[in-house]
Amino acid sequence: MAQLNPYFSLLEESYLFQKIAAKKEAASRKDLINLGIGDISEPLPTEAVEALQKASKEMEDRPIGYGPANGYLFLREKLALHTSADEVFISDGAKRDSADLADLFHPSTRVGICDPVYPVYRDANLLLGRSITYICCLEENGFVPLPPKEPLDLIYLCSPHNPTGVAMNRGELKKWVDYALEHEAIIIFDTAYAPFITSPDVPASIYEIPGAQKCAIELGSFSKGARFTGLRCAWSIIPKALGEIHAAWARRQSIHTNGVSYPVQRAAEAVCKHVPSTTSIKEATKELKNGLEKRGWRCFGGIDAPYIWAKPPQAATSWEIFDRLLNEWGIVCTPGSGFGSQGEGFVRFSAFGGKETVQKALRRLEAMHAL
Amino acid sequence: MAQLNPYFSLLEESYLFQKIAAKKEAASRKDLINLGIGDISEPLPTEAVEALQKASKEMEDRPIGYGPANGYLFLREKLALHTSADEVFISDGAKRDSADLADLFHPSTRVGICDPVYPVYRDANLLLGRSITYICCLEENGFVPLPPKEPLDLIYLCSPHNPTGVAMNRGELKKWVDYALEHEAIIIFDTAYAPFITSPDVPASIYEIPGAQKCAIELGSFSKGARFTGLRCAWSIIPKALGEIHAAWARRQSIHTNGVSYPVQRAAEAVCKHVPSTTSIKEATKELKNGLEKRGWRCFGGIDAPYIWAKPPQAATSWEIFDRLLNEWGIVCTPGSGFGSQGEGFVRFSAFGGKETVQKALRRLEAMHAL
Repeated sequence: MAQLNPYFSLLEESYLFQKIAAKKEAASRKDLINLGIGDISEPLPTEAVEALQKASKEMEDRPIGYGPANGYLFLREKLALHTSADEVFISDGAKRDSADLADLFHPSTRVGICDPVYPVYRDANLLLGRSITYICCLEENGFVPLPPKEPLDLIYLCSPHNPTGVAMNRGELKKWVDYALEHEAIIIFDTAYAPFITSPDVPASIYEIPGAQKCAIELGSFSKGARFTGLRCAWSIIPKALGEIHAAWARRQSIHTNGVSYPVQRAAEAVCKHVPSTTSIKEATKELKNGLEKRGWRCFGGIDAPYIWAKPPQAATSWEIFDRLLNEWGIVCTPGSGFGSQGEGFVRFSAFGGKETVQKALRRLEAMHAL
Repeated sequence: MAQLNPYFSLLEESYLFQKIAAKKEAASRKDLINLGIGDISEPLPTEAVEALQKASKEMEDRPIGYGPANGYLFLREKLALHTSADEVFISDGAKRDSADLADLFHPSTRVGICDPVYPVYRDANLLLGRSITYICCLEENGFVPLPPKEPLDLIYLCSPHNPTGVAMNRGELKKWVDYALEHEAIIIFDTAYAPFITSPDVPASIYEIPGAQKCAIELGSFSKGARFTGLRCAWSIIPKALGEIHAAWARRQSIHTNGVSYPVQRAAEAVCKHVPSTTSIKEATKELKNGLEKRGWRCFGGIDAPYIWAKPPQAATSWEIFDRLLNEWGIVCTPGSGFGSQGEGFVRFSAFGGKETVQKALRRLEAMHAL
């Protein structure tokens, strides 16, 4: 008799965003302003569209069949800034890689995951039956994660971080590299939001830290910076210095995938050559953060990522803040507690909706404050 | 200390096709004729190219971000022939799904896999530490797999089958559905080669068999019929009648993927409306099979799939046949033993290269026979 993987019972029943969608529907307001968005609101860059169309035509002119499971060399070369092209693996999403990479490790692996956190890291490891140690990101440390005293084997770090928008500077990241080298741990370093970094001391790649080649896997994505959320392309860097991990990933990928769509890889190549501007989103983020702070919100992040992690002048639970913003002001945010227990009392605001959306929201919050 | 998943050691070191590639390179002949090909040799249909280009332009005109993890409704509706659209899940490959679906089941699952077989089913389950029962496909049964006496929980069936090209008729498939219902087992039924079926009694879907909704997951692919190998699109059908399996897959996919590229799904929709012809490949297959039989080869398959499973007049091992065809006649095939121990003594010929390739190969084999 076929039986289900018992670890499904460890997952929470409803995915955060489904609950938010249900509440939005229940509010039945037509003038909602979405500051909960993690998606792009700008169209695909012209260079990407042209590359897609050209590659599609090529496929009509001659058969272009299976590509390499790890991606075409033309794209891997463009992404090999700190490593060789052989160490770059193209995929259809950083979500995919961050979840699939968990397969590489021993069942007894001790996994360290930040709290609050993007839920995928946790859920993928729960499904493998692993016990998870939460690395609490605390308000008193500015929500920067600090290495724990106990030894962990596999650590997920995301910087700039989702949901807090907080990025680690060189010194903070070096502590993690040193920790991983000491404990022979592996760090999976997710840089999906790197295109929004503005601080000079925040590294866009963990490989800027000496020793990281021996302990870190890095994930990058075209989703947020190049607006590829609907196109699907990302990459992982698995240094050969990690030993058998490198070959194991290549082998694992040869079982699970025949690579990413050829036209999509050509579009990704195009945005490597002409990197899309993220200025307007950065400006919207700055405006939102300033506006919230003026209105008495305590804010973190919002400097190196389009996310602002905030709590209102009067303490409340995350869902209370969410409900009030939604039902009284028609503003959608994301409840911080949905990202882990340390998120309680905070919400995540996103500036992905752009300047106009941010300005409209701030005008409403002005009115809220005036009451 | 991070440790590797120990089950990687159960995988064979070299992937079959890598070994073939190395031997081809060593042969250093420029006039090789490839009858080993599992890839398309015809370009993408015009309808697909037009849909890709149109969808790309749409993404320039307005932001098209994350799609549903299970695929757009416009495509799922087109594929819901025997089920509801809610039971269809779009993915980037039947390889992906056949490997990923293994995650759904209990660690103790008893897995049944045919021998010879497409290696992905085996490798994905080996990596999960499962013991595998091989269902021997024997020459005396025409390489049709028969249900075993012992109970299994999860059975992978591919019909028309890769590598043998042999398809199960209604009666043969019914035995498996009855077996699965009796043992409360799940069948994963891979129909990647269904677009090449010519026999009236061979079902293109397992759901043509009564009761299959209660015991079968079906995989379909645009790769071979619509020449999407370089574009990547496929689907799985997971009936709600399978109980918690359906919801578990939806949950699992929400962790691992943000869905398939929007333009690719539009291209897939286009080939659902205008189904590409497979006539020329079917004719090439027939010609190849007739030609081989005339030259004394014993052949199976080649009626409902572009694969012919064959052994020469003089018995030899699969690699001996491969080496002789390669080095003496410049013809590439795929050694049957690479698909499992029951493949020994056979090779797989493919007609995917088309008529001209097949005719050229047969002329060489004529000369071989004359010697």
